[in-house]
Amino acid sequence: MSAEPRELGELRRRAGEIADLSGIGGLLLWDQNTMMPPGGADARADQFEALERIVHDRLTDPELGRLLDALEPWAASADPDGDDAALVDNLRRDHHKAVNVPTDLAAEISSANAHAQQAWMAARENSDFKLFQPALERVLELTHRYVACFDGTSQFAHPYDVLLDDYEPGLTTEELRGIFVTIQQELVPLVSAAAAAGEHGRVFPGHFPQESQNALAQELLAAVGYDPEFWRLDASVHPFARSMAHTDVRLTTRWEEDDLAMAFYSCLHEFGHGLYEAQMDPRHYRTTLAEATGLGVHESQSRLWENLVGRSKPFCEWVLPVLRKHLNGPFEAIEVPELYRNVNQVRLSLVRIEADETTYNLHIALRFELELALIEGHLAVKDLPDAWDEATHRLLGLETTSLKEGVLQDIHWGAGMIGYFPTYTIGNLMAAQLWRALSAELPDIDASIAAGDFRPLREWLRDNIHRQGRKYTSRQLLQRVTGEELRVDPFLEYLEGKLLDAGLLTEPVRVPRS
Amino acid sequence: MSAEPRELGELRRRAGEIADLSGIGGLLLWDQNTMMPPGGADARADQFEALERIVHDRLTDPELGRLLDALEPWAASADPDGDDAALVDNLRRDHHKAVNVPTDLAAEISSANAHAQQAWMAARENSDFKLFQPALERVLELTHRYVACFDGTSQFAHPYDVLLDDYEPGLTTEELRGIFVTIQQELVPLVSAAAAAGEHGRVFPGHFPQESQNALAQELLAAVGYDPEFWRLDASVHPFARSMAHTDVRLTTRWEEDDLAMAFYSCLHEFGHGLYEAQMDPRHYRTTLAEATGLGVHESQSRLWENLVGRSKPFCEWVLPVLRKHLNGPFEAIEVPELYRNVNQVRLSLVRIEADETTYNLHIALRFELELALIEGHLAVKDLPDAWDEATHRLLGLETTSLKEGVLQDIHWGAGMIGYFPTYTIGNLMAAQLWRALSAELPDIDASIAAGDFRPLREWLRDNIHRQGRKYTSRQLLQRVTGEELRVDPFLEYLEGKLLDAGLLTEPVRVPRS
Repeated sequence: MSAEPRELGELRRRAGEIADLSGIGGLLLWDQNTMMPPGGADARADQFEALERIVHDRLTDPELGRLLDALEPWAASADPDGDDAALVDNLRRDHHKAVNVPTDLAAEISSANAHAQQAWMAARENSDFKLFQPALERVLELTHRYVACFDGTSQFAHPYDVLLDDYEPGLTTEELRGIFVTIQQELVPLVSAAAAAGEHGRVFPGHFPQESQNALAQELLAAVGYDPEFWRLDASVHPFARSMAHTDVRLTTRWEEDDLAMAFYSCLHEFGHGLYEAQMDPRHYRTTLAEATGLGVHESQSRLWENLVGRSKPFCEWVLPVLRKHLNGPFEAIEVPELYRNVNQVRLSLVRIEADETTYNLHIALRFELELALIEGHLAVKDLPDAWDEATHRLLGLETTSLKEGVLQDIHWGAGMIGYFPTYTIGNLMAAQLWRALSAELPDIDASIAAGDFRPLREWLRDNIHRQGRKYTSRQLLQRVTGEELRVDPFLEYLEGKLLDAGLLTEPVRVPRS
Repeated sequence: MSAEPRELGELRRRAGEIADLSGIGGLLLWDQNTMMPPGGADARADQFEALERIVHDRLTDPELGRLLDALEPWAASADPDGDDAALVDNLRRDHHKAVNVPTDLAAEISSANAHAQQAWMAARENSDFKLFQPALERVLELTHRYVACFDGTSQFAHPYDVLLDDYEPGLTTEELRGIFVTIQQELVPLVSAAAAAGEHGRVFPGHFPQESQNALAQELLAAVGYDPEFWRLDASVHPFARSMAHTDVRLTTRWEEDDLAMAFYSCLHEFGHGLYEAQMDPRHYRTTLAEATGLGVHESQSRLWENLVGRSKPFCEWVLPVLRKHLNGPFEAIEVPELYRNVNQVRLSLVRIEADETTYNLHIALRFELELALIEGHLAVKDLPDAWDEATHRLLGLETTSLKEGVLQDIHWGAGMIGYFPTYTIGNLMAAQLWRALSAELPDIDASIAAGDFRPLREWLRDNIHRQGRKYTSRQLLQRVTGEELRVDPFLEYLEGKLLDAGLLTEPVRVPRS
């Protein structure tokens, strides 16, 4: 083993500062979406911009480049599973990506995104796309300028690849096109068979006051592993999770008194994200290793808790008495098979975050198609509402009824996150693959869940996924844990299997592909 | 008028960045004391340290020094009432103060303060000074090192002056000694006469649920000028106000169901602080001019709303029906004269933030004496609890009953704020002087307050104090508005006058000093 070079200490110091600044950025973002008075938005945009300038300057610092160059020979011969070699590798990738982008542009993007987010909120509240259009055009213009920064490099085959790489490093447009073709081909018949057969009432019928929902959420979260010493839960328009450190994890949810499923599943979903952050290896604190390796993996964690756990039969067995305890009325008359059926019912709907697990990826296919068209220049922002409605009709067979349930339903584009949506589908696919692997290693997992014991699952995820942080790429991690590449079939098989098991399909629909 | 030098643009850019970072620091602090899960404390200390390093590096940047030098001849000949000359002057003072302090020390102080604050909380909760002692010793050691950074300069006559200058620029130990001698001499007889004559019940008798108190606070704050578009109110152990910008002002209060006075007066007090921040001139946003000129002036604003407004007869006239509306029971049986008497009653007590207006400054005299002894080296941290109890007996004639009501009652020392307490007394003195000036200019002020119309007062404060920001020093500002230097007599005369008016004194006690 090679001796530790003296540059490593300085590299760690720099990684520590970048991690601290990233934690601060997390707080700015969390606060903006939960606590900040509306009038504070402009000042917050300035603060984001100031922070972004500093982080970008740190990442592009020529001195960092020299340190990385000096460490390269050592890293090449060091243990590839060692932490320090991974730190060098991560910082080299971040440095190389950042140096292509001028600091002024990075700062402009940060500020424009903060403004567009506020414009999106106003447009949504007033059902007026025009209030959002100029801000989104600005975001798109800056996105094009960002993509153009990589024109001279050979790293990316497609402009959209530049964006994907920010969220799921190494993911390509070509790969995604193939995935979405398969998904559309396979999901459309599955959805129509199940939607025709299934019920069409609400997942959880009834009106439940926010207080009761909150008491339920607290018990639910405590059971799965939420610890108030290190976590908190608040309300926001768009549920999300953000951590300032592995010891400071913030979840948000949305309380809808006529739609318990919103808080119930968003709490489980955001818990999955939060647990990934909370179970990072404390030894990696203040390094790039205490970060998610990609948002696809991040999303696999939220989907796993929301769907593979939260909509499973054993979970229904455990949770029904909890529902009965906190929410009088409708749950007395329901038994496990009905609950299991209800929470898995297939029902075409307009809003992505209210979509069931089966139709969900069609919502992502729609967004992938539209944002790709925006980036390729086939679609102008002003035509986006019509394009949205057309795609909704074509992919979901539904007519859009309002902007809030249409093109203005998601915060992402307004927050500058173009290329982000596909990670949701990647997460769904990975979650199914991971579940196969963990079921094989934890044969009693169903019994544990039915008994409300989530510790074996948490520990498996911690040891196999969370603790690794950014030490391996998503592909490497998936390969290590499942022995496989990213695949669509395990997800489709899981979906169909559950629909059959829950009585929502009477016979198989899919023709197994070779 | 001299043409604008080209360096001014760059100076403004730098001031803007420093202002953005200061807003971010405000958020870190606000969040730490309101929202952060307890386990996040260590990471927050790292984040404070990272931010402090950056701010300190910006302030001590030699390039800033060169810009200031280049601008000096222009500033010397520019309009002394002009904004830009004031900006140059402020940044020069900040730069000169910062360059004496190594960045590592500034960062260490920031981190030690964050840790000591958590230690204070733990010590307070467990009633164990030993849990706080090492952290406070560390704070004191770093404070001594900080003071020693100015050894070679001729700016400060006393080590404690270095600290005072951070909170109230230009305030000196010598001046404060004189002020506190007078205050003690004059207050002790006033307090004993009034305490002997007055009632000794609670200010607001009764048990009031948090919800009712909150509804009352919302109405009260809305009436005085709190605007939810730009402000928010939360709970914290220690009420405080902090702004991230003039458009993002955060107040906190403490809900004590058996002590309505806590929330009632802390809301008014923190509102006064918040209004100073909210009414900064928007033209000065992102410059050093949109800052308080000193914490004495800041405190004069909070005291003015808490005491000169909030404990006045016209305010009692306006607020009694509001109290009756939100809090059933005891207020039905009370009339204005009794309310006015109750809220001004003099009652020696152990806890500063529960102290009445008359005894309040004796609590500050105690802290000034002790922290001066700590800085001069006559007192060791380990002996602080005994020294506290002794001084409490000597100055207030009371025996300390617990650490929570004794040496552990205040967050300040744990937050590294040594030299801060005297600004509370300065604020009380200034508030009385400002009230005289504003009463002369607003002869109908009592009638406005009695009618619940606080606009004339807000506007007078905005135009005379708030909009000036840091354009003038505290002394200059006081001189401009009142034509006077800082004086003790107006405060003492106001106090005695009110006690007589409210029937809490039957005859004058003070012998007017020549």
